[in-house]
Amino acid sequence: MTSAGTGELELIRRIKANTRTRNAGVRVGIGDDCAILKVLTGQEVVVTTDLCLEGRHFRRDWHSAESAGHRCLARGLSDVAAMGARPVAAFLSVALPRGFDEGWFDGFMAGFQALAARYDVELAGGDTGEATGEEIMADVVVIGALNKMRAMRRVGARVGDGIFVTGSLGGAAAELKALAEGVAWAGSGHPQTFPEPRMDVGLTLMRRGWATACMDISDGLSSDLRQICAASGVRAEVDLDRIPMAAGATLEQALNGGEDYELLFTAMAGVKVPKQLAAVWVTRIGTMIGGEGPLVQVAGGEELLAGGWEHLA
Amino acid sequence: MTSAGTGELELIRRIKANTRTRNAGVRVGIGDDCAILKVLTGQEVVVTTDLCLEGRHFRRDWHSAESAGHRCLARGLSDVAAMGARPVAAFLSVALPRGFDEGWFDGFMAGFQALAARYDVELAGGDTGEATGEEIMADVVVIGALNKMRAMRRVGARVGDGIFVTGSLGGAAAELKALAEGVAWAGSGHPQTFPEPRMDVGLTLMRRGWATACMDISDGLSSDLRQICAASGVRAEVDLDRIPMAAGATLEQALNGGEDYELLFTAMAGVKVPKQLAAVWVTRIGTMIGGEGPLVQVAGGEELLAGGWEHLA
Repeated sequence: MTSAGTGELELIRRIKANTRTRNAGVRVGIGDDCAILKVLTGQEVVVTTDLCLEGRHFRRDWHSAESAGHRCLARGLSDVAAMGARPVAAFLSVALPRGFDEGWFDGFMAGFQALAARYDVELAGGDTGEATGEEIMADVVVIGALNKMRAMRRVGARVGDGIFVTGSLGGAAAELKALAEGVAWAGSGHPQTFPEPRMDVGLTLMRRGWATACMDISDGLSSDLRQICAASGVRAEVDLDRIPMAAGATLEQALNGGEDYELLFTAMAGVKVPKQLAAVWVTRIGTMIGGEGPLVQVAGGEELLAGGWEHLA
Repeated sequence: MTSAGTGELELIRRIKANTRTRNAGVRVGIGDDCAILKVLTGQEVVVTTDLCLEGRHFRRDWHSAESAGHRCLARGLSDVAAMGARPVAAFLSVALPRGFDEGWFDGFMAGFQALAARYDVELAGGDTGEATGEEIMADVVVIGALNKMRAMRRVGARVGDGIFVTGSLGGAAAELKALAEGVAWAGSGHPQTFPEPRMDVGLTLMRRGWATACMDISDGLSSDLRQICAASGVRAEVDLDRIPMAAGATLEQALNGGEDYELLFTAMAGVKVPKQLAAVWVTRIGTMIGGEGPLVQVAGGEELLAGGWEHLA
């Protein structure tokens, strides 16, 4: 990280003022050329980065400042959870337009830091700059740690493994639709504006060694399950009747909506995965099957096309 | 990191196609929810992030695509060098305008990867997105490793320590001026377009334990030396006659130009720092002195005001 130009000092002051959470894994945080992270003997480090672009990942007319800050960090925490790691530190690089709304940015940082505090994540660095356009751009890095060779990956699913998802799907897309239409959100919780990363489930799965493959659902079940198929060299068969639907969501939203940040994992046929993990419901939705090339099909054999996540734009 | 929307697949293909350098510290690179980094027993990890915004950190009419890519990575490598760490992995998040010039981006990646290859840095992840404006925005993370408690920091300089800089100063600003004026650059090397991080000097200083404080010169000597003063609770007295001037640079550029990415460090009075470290010239430019509040003064006592780095805009 570099020192600030004079125009950035106020911004950095605002970021530092909101940095309250400490993590014992951070020996040196904001203020030197690099942050310094301690790593326990026998552990390895996981790293994820996510761009959060206004107009694509959040909209100031739909998402509150607190929601935007929460969502920017939640994406990275969800990636760390999917590996079965414990988050340690976050880094926030943010480019703000000239004359940005300071109150809005304080709200953004409050949303970011409230989520960071819940998972003991220390904001350990980042960078600031002036965006040339009108939109806010953020890049969030989350670093976590876990015991060597214990990370859950997309590769590892085998023919016969059960396919599982946590929580319910489609809520993020359904709440987004309500925001776009300006109608009151009648569903449960706030899956779009304040998604909760499944940290405890990820840690439990890692410790028990149940999952043969795991990832988070960011783009949508239809796309993300295909990623596990591609990485593992198997196909997936999904029973649409078993998809856990969020209240207020359609099947289309549950399959393709994305941004639910639930965990998607596979487990060996012999493993009896509990119906609840770390107080979150877990549902078996299908089985990994053989066949050439990555493919997700429904019971009966029809291909479930990857709908993927449609950007806000 | 998340999977790609369909519009980003081509971009990711271009990034992956340019990813050739491997580092043994990277167990899992691009392609899972997180990258996984191995850490040797007894080591700790350093992390730095730098925003690279078109129009502020590079200009497409002044910098070639290769120069822009090189510069984006060089900033982070220089931070890692200043800590005395060895770089392991880089992460590149990039937001490109709709309809970006693919040839330009290939050049950007070629410049980035050529520098990465020189220091065995593996591009282990990142994210891509579509910028809503006309400008390219990148955020580069560099992660390094070194033995526990051996990192050189800004804090640690004491009264009586000598102040040293590597190489020469002002060249980056002087070459930038030539680019802006459209005149041929008559100086030595390409300090603006292809700055070289002082990796070997940083490693040597760390191993020998000579430096009481160290940072890289990114904003300019006058600003950066003040950072060491502020962190260490001392003042600095600089002899202007001893500043190593780059060929073609003015004293103003050497003091305030910034972007030289030389190392600035302090060493105890009793330590005889060689005139060359890892084939780079080292010059003593002053002495740390006592006094309240961070202050850089010239011989005679007049304050050297922090000129800092002026953004391109």
